[in-house]
Amino acid sequence: MEQYIPNWLKQRAELTPMRLAIKTKTREITYEQLYEKVQQRVNYFSTKNIKKGQHVAVLMKNSIEMIETLHALFAIGAIAVLLNTRLSKQELAWQISDVEATHIICHEELEPKLIEVGKEVTIVINEKITLHEKSNAIHGYTFDQVATIMYTSGTTGNPKGVMQTFGNHWSSAIGSALNLGLQMNDRWLLAVPLFHISGLSILIRSVIYGTSIVLHERFDAKSMNEAIVKEEVTIVSVVTTMLQQMLEDLGSKQYPASFRCMLAGGGPVPKPLLVECLHRQIPVYQTYGMTETASQIATLAPEYCLEKLGSAGKPLFSCDIKVEKDGRECSSNEEGEILVKGPNVTKGYWKRHDATADSLSNGWFHTGDIGFKDEDGFLFVLDRRSDLIISGGENVYPAEIEAVLLSHPLVIDAGVIGVKDLKWGEVPHAFIVSKEQVSKEEMLDFCTNSLASYKVPKEITSMDELPRNSSNKLLRRLLKEMIKDKTDDKN
Amino acid sequence: MEQYIPNWLKQRAELTPMRLAIKTKTREITYEQLYEKVQQRVNYFSTKNIKKGQHVAVLMKNSIEMIETLHALFAIGAIAVLLNTRLSKQELAWQISDVEATHIICHEELEPKLIEVGKEVTIVINEKITLHEKSNAIHGYTFDQVATIMYTSGTTGNPKGVMQTFGNHWSSAIGSALNLGLQMNDRWLLAVPLFHISGLSILIRSVIYGTSIVLHERFDAKSMNEAIVKEEVTIVSVVTTMLQQMLEDLGSKQYPASFRCMLAGGGPVPKPLLVECLHRQIPVYQTYGMTETASQIATLAPEYCLEKLGSAGKPLFSCDIKVEKDGRECSSNEEGEILVKGPNVTKGYWKRHDATADSLSNGWFHTGDIGFKDEDGFLFVLDRRSDLIISGGENVYPAEIEAVLLSHPLVIDAGVIGVKDLKWGEVPHAFIVSKEQVSKEEMLDFCTNSLASYKVPKEITSMDELPRNSSNKLLRRLLKEMIKDKTDDKN
Repeated sequence: MEQYIPNWLKQRAELTPMRLAIKTKTREITYEQLYEKVQQRVNYFSTKNIKKGQHVAVLMKNSIEMIETLHALFAIGAIAVLLNTRLSKQELAWQISDVEATHIICHEELEPKLIEVGKEVTIVINEKITLHEKSNAIHGYTFDQVATIMYTSGTTGNPKGVMQTFGNHWSSAIGSALNLGLQMNDRWLLAVPLFHISGLSILIRSVIYGTSIVLHERFDAKSMNEAIVKEEVTIVSVVTTMLQQMLEDLGSKQYPASFRCMLAGGGPVPKPLLVECLHRQIPVYQTYGMTETASQIATLAPEYCLEKLGSAGKPLFSCDIKVEKDGRECSSNEEGEILVKGPNVTKGYWKRHDATADSLSNGWFHTGDIGFKDEDGFLFVLDRRSDLIISGGENVYPAEIEAVLLSHPLVIDAGVIGVKDLKWGEVPHAFIVSKEQVSKEEMLDFCTNSLASYKVPKEITSMDELPRNSSNKLLRRLLKEMIKDKTDDKN
Repeated sequence: MEQYIPNWLKQRAELTPMRLAIKTKTREITYEQLYEKVQQRVNYFSTKNIKKGQHVAVLMKNSIEMIETLHALFAIGAIAVLLNTRLSKQELAWQISDVEATHIICHEELEPKLIEVGKEVTIVINEKITLHEKSNAIHGYTFDQVATIMYTSGTTGNPKGVMQTFGNHWSSAIGSALNLGLQMNDRWLLAVPLFHISGLSILIRSVIYGTSIVLHERFDAKSMNEAIVKEEVTIVSVVTTMLQQMLEDLGSKQYPASFRCMLAGGGPVPKPLLVECLHRQIPVYQTYGMTETASQIATLAPEYCLEKLGSAGKPLFSCDIKVEKDGRECSSNEEGEILVKGPNVTKGYWKRHDATADSLSNGWFHTGDIGFKDEDGFLFVLDRRSDLIISGGENVYPAEIEAVLLSHPLVIDAGVIGVKDLKWGEVPHAFIVSKEQVSKEEMLDFCTNSLASYKVPKEITSMDELPRNSSNKLLRRLLKEMIKDKTDDKN
C-alpha cells in the first residue's frame, strides 16, 4: 500500500500553532496564521478553477505570498512548476508550454515577462487581492505523488522538467535532519531563490520540523550577516559566491555561538575559502546535491570537517552513492561519474521518457558529475558535469546558449564553456564561427533578448572552425585550454 | 513501488563508524565495532541455519549480545520474536509454539525456562561462543517487511503476536525526532526491557540517529541517577514507578542542564508527580503509545508541559488520533475510545485475521483505551483499556490470569481487576468462586507455576458468585467498587 502523507502545513498548524513560521524584515507569521492564509488562498485558487493534478506555473520572488501559494497548491494537489524569475520571456514561454500548465501565478511586477505565453489562465498576485473565505478542502499526499516540477538542462537539447514527489521532499528533509540534527529553536535563513531546490527545500524542512524561516527576498551579504547576528539564525544555505561576500562584509566580527551551520552547496567550495572559515570558526558543511535529488544527497558530517576538508561527505541516511567508470565501480581514489540512489531521487523528467531512461537505471541516477570516493568512503566532487557552468550558484547549460547563438542568421557553429571568475565562480564564454563578421555587441544584444542575463556570455571569440572530434562532438576541453593559454600568456 | 530501506546498522557504520554506539558499566562499543560483531553473528546464525523470513524467538536480558543478536536477525531478514523473560515456562512455550518459531536464541541463564518448549533449534548465548568469520550477507529491508513480533493480550483469549514492520519502526523513530529534536551528542539511557517496545525503540532510534545508548541490564533508581549525572545522558525512558523511585533517590540533588528529556510512558503519570517534577525542573514529556504503535503515538511538545499538564500531547508528525463513542467522533472534552492512525501502526496480529479485522479499520487502530481531546486538540488518556492492569510498566491482562485460575480443578468462576498500589501503580486482585474451599496459599502456588510473578494476584477473594450481566459479561466495575468500599471502610 502506498504510503500516505498528511498535509504538512495542516498538521504543523494543529501541532504547534503558535510557533514562528516565517520572519521577514517587516512581518512575523505563526504556523496558525500561515495555515489560515493558505486556506484562504486555496479557496481563491479554487474560484480560479485550479484543480488537483493540474500543472500550475509559479513565477514569483521570495515572499510570504509565494510560500502561501506553494502550500495552497500542495493542499489542492496541483503541481507547482517553479519558474526562474531571471529567465527571458522566450525561455519562460517555452517552459510553460512544455509543462502544459493550465495556470500561471505571478507577482504583478513579473507579469510583463509573460507577454510571450499562450492561453494559460494568469493569476496576478498583488496587494489588491482580498482573501476572506477559507477552504477546508486541504488534502494530504501520497509518497509517489508529484509535488513540484523544476526545469534543468541536459548536455544537449531543451531543458527538462524534473518531477519531485512529496516522498522525495519528505525524505530529503528527514535525511538532512538526521545529519545536521534538529533543534526546536532552529531558524533557517532563506536568501537563495525559492524557485530553486536550495530554497524550496528550506521551506519544506521548516514545516516538517516546526522550525522558523528568516526570509530574504534576495541575497545581500550585509543583510545576511545582520540576520545571523541579530535574528537568532542558526542555519544558512549558501553558494560559494555568497559565502565569499559574507566573509568580506563580516570583516573582523564573529558569528554568535548559536549559529551552527553554514550549508554550502551549488558546486565545490574552493579549499582556501574552507580553510579561512575553519580559522574563523565558521561551521561550514559542504554539501552535494541537485534538482534531481530534491536538494542534498551528501553532506559532510560535523566531526569530519577538518580531517576531510573539501569533501562533500557521505550519503544522507537512506541514500547511497557510487562512482563508476566504463560501467564498473571505481576503486578508492579513482575518478569517475557519480551515481546516486535514494528516496529523494526524482522518478524522472516530465514527458521525457528517453531522458529518464538514460539517467535512471535500477534506482541509480547518473549525475554526469565527476568525482571519487577516498579510502574511507568520503565523496570528493571534482567538477560538476563536465560541461556545466555554475555561475553564482545558478546552473548554466552551454547547450542552451549554443542553441541561441546558432539561431542567429549569420552564425554557423557555436560552442560555450565556463571560465573562472573571481566573483561568480564561473562565467560563460562563447566561441562562434560565422558566415561573415558579426560584432561582439550585436551577438550580446541578440543573446540578451533570448537568455537570462546570467547566461549571456561575458566574452565572444570568433574562430574559423571549432575543435570537434570525428563524431562531430565539440571538444570543450580544447576550448578551455585556449582560454587557459591566453590567461597564462598574460601572467 | 514499495519503499526500500537500507540496512540501518551497515549504513550507520559506514557514515559515522567512530561514534559511540553502546556504553555499559564495563564496555564501550562504537558503531564500527558493533557492525563487525553483528557481521560475525550473522555468519554464526547462518551456520545454525537461520534464514530470511523465519521466526526466531529471542529470550535474552538487556545486553550488548542481545542488541547484536537483534541487528543480526534484521540483517538476515529473519523476524525476531521478543519474549518477556519474566514469563512462566508455560507462557513461553505457548508463545514460541503459536508464533511457529524455527529457532530460539537465549542467554544461558534463561535456558532452564525453556524446558517445556517443542522441537525448535535452541541457540544458547554464552561466553564460550567464539565468533570469528564475518558474513557480508547484510540485507536491507522494505517498508512493509515484518521486523519484530511482540505478544500482547486482548480482553479475552490468548495473547496475540503484534507484527511490527521496518516501516513502523522507522516512522516511529522519525516521528520522535521531529517532536523531541535530535542532537548529535544525545545519549539515551536504556533501562527498560529491550523485549518491550519501549526498550527496542531506543535501540532503533539510536542506530538511525547515530546517537548513543547507555545500557543498563535492569532498572535501579540509584544507577539511573548516577548515569544521568555522570555519563552525559540526555534522554531517559521511564514508567511512573521508575520515575517515583528515581526522585526519591535523587533527594535534594539536581540533574545536569544537559539532561533534556524524561520520556514517561506506560500509562498516565499521576499529576502530583508531574507537578513535583515541574518544581524540580525535571523535563518530563508525557507520552502515549503501545506495542501496536511501535512506541509513541502522541507526546506532549515541550512548550505545553505546563499549560497542558497531564496531557499526552498531540499525535507525532504523520500520525492522527481521534476519540469515538458509539461510532461517531466525540466533541471536545467528551470521553470515548481512542483511535490512532499512522505509518507506525502495526499491520496486524500474526495469524489472527479476526482480531486484526476487529482492531483495524481504514487504517485506524482501536486502542480500547479511554480518553478525550480538549478544545485545543490535546489528548488526555484517562485509563488504559478498561480491563488492562499496568503494574510497574508491565501490561497485565486479566483474561490471562482468569484462564489460569479457571484451570484449577476446584475453581468454577474467576475475575481479576487491578487495584491501586503505591509502588507498582496497580497490582492484580483475583475473585474466585470454588466448588469447595481453597486456601489463598494454594491458589497463589498454583498461579506461580503458570504465570510470570508480576501477574500473580496479590490478593484472592472467595465469593459465592461473581457479578455478571445478562449476557454473562463480567462486571469488573462492581468488583472495583467492592475493593474501593473496603478501602474506604478502613479509612
